[in-house]
Amino acid sequence: MLLAKVIGTVVSTRKEKSMEGLKFLLLRQVDLDGKESGGHIVAADAVGAGFGEMVLYATGSSARQTVMTDKRPCDAVVMAIVDNWEVDGEIKYKKGESD
Amino acid sequence: MLLAKVIGTVVSTRKEKSMEGLKFLLLRQVDLDGKESGGHIVAADAVGAGFGEMVLYATGSSARQTVMTDKRPCDAVVMAIVDNWEVDGEIKYKKGESD
Amino acid sequence: MLLAKVIGTVVSTRKEKSMEGLKFLLLRQVDLDGKESGGHIVAADAVGAGFGEMVLYATGSSARQTVMTDKRPCDAVVMAIVDNWEVDGEIKYKKGESD
Amino acid sequence: MLLAKVIGTVVSTRKEKSMEGLKFLLLRQVDLDGKESGGHIVAADAVGAGFGEMVLYATGSSARQTVMTDKRPCDAVVMAIVDNWEVDGEIKYKKGESD
Amino acid sequence: MLLAKVIGTVVSTRKEKSMEGLKFLLLRQVDLDGKESGGHIVAADAVGAGFGEMVLYATGSSARQTVMTDKRPCDAVVMAIVDNWEVDGEIKYKKGESD
Repeated sequence: MLLAKVIGTVVSTRKEKSMEGLKFLLLRQVDLDGKESGGHIVAADAVGAGFGEMVLYATGSSARQTVMTDKRPCDAVVMAIVDNWEVDGEIKYKKGESD
Repeated sequence: MLLAKVIGTVVSTRKEKSMEGLKFLLLRQVDLDGKESGGHIVAADAVGAGFGEMVLYATGSSARQTVMTDKRPCDAVVMAIVDNWEVDGEIKYKKGESD
Repeated sequence: MLLAKVIGTVVSTRKEKSMEGLKFLLLRQVDLDGKESGGHIVAADAVGAGFGEMVLYATGSSARQTVMTDKRPCDAVVMAIVDNWEVDGEIKYKKGESD
Repeated sequence: MLLAKVIGTVVSTRKEKSMEGLKFLLLRQVDLDGKESGGHIVAADAVGAGFGEMVLYATGSSARQTVMTDKRPCDAVVMAIVDNWEVDGEIKYKKGESD
Repeated sequence: MLLAKVIGTVVSTRKEKSMEGLKFLLLRQVDLDGKESGGHIVAADAVGAGFGEMVLYATGSSARQTVMTDKRPCDAVVMAIVDNWEVDGEIKYKKGESD
């Protein structure tokens, strides 16, 4: 899984039928300090993540292992909202601080 | 899924039998402002996407989760045509504007 | 799928039993003008592609969705020989010309 | 599989139900000398790896081939703790030395 | 599949139970001339490859399509030892020469 920040949303009316009802979140990868860096990706939302939240997303066939994405042409899913992470024993990101 | 623009088509007469009837779209990834950047990829079309449209495509085994691509040697599929997307609360792309 | 050119072959006598009878093609990715660029990859041949031909190849589990590669440890397959492609309405490659 | 070092942990209370009970390790890839380099990734822990340990992790659908990750939206798993590795006949990393 | 050279081995005693008995080879990708370049990866050995040999390895779910790796958290497998390869009609690597 990769750490990313929810930076926006993507809207599509004309899509594969099975994708109806799924919310598309626009994510951008973050570095270990929580700063946006690296690429952006669009992921289905399986946990009700909101704008600005730090999340974990899974890709590939693993992205279909949720009730919402099962058997759908979906290759990325937000499967966790991050509370905090630490590196070398130091808290590098904590939800609610410096978002 | 990744955001991309339909920039062309690929024609092939000699191909895996199961791929007959599939339309191959040539896509190029776009940045958050909708400008072409990054690599190109060839994807099967599952939604009737047209030239110049912004789309979402899925890769890997997820690309086979449509009626058109099921059990075929296809590793990328256009599964949604994008109406618009927003980043940090600002509309960055809207279909019909500045295409 | 990705566009590539057949630049050579790889020979192996000692290999996974299930791989016997498969031809290994050496491919190099091409840019939108058909010039070799980017990385090389080895793919099984499912369509009888020849040296110098432009092809499409699929990777991952999709590479096993052909009769020749089913249930084999093969993660890339040439599944189409390209006749031509166009970008922005212009033919960029046509088989038989400037090969 | 890739060689990586456990550099931290990620905590999430709001996540896909099936992910409960899994420990998320923050990994950073290492070069052949064991020095941190390259990207970071978050992987589920299947072997009880501790902070600072060198591990092997698997990605994609292979990351779901453990009892702990089966059928879960998990695309990376630590499946081995590394004792040592050698390159060109020379021990480059040995657990317990120069950690 | 990708061309690589066996440059070493990785030893692990504490690992996923299903991984017992598998040999972990340390590989480094090679360029078309057979020179080491690009990244390193750890792959299970399905063909008895030895130090210094040129091999082909497969990744992802395809890496589990061997008797030795079936249903195991293994995402890369050496499935062929290379005898030779040619590029543009010229032998670029031949086993036993200039190893």
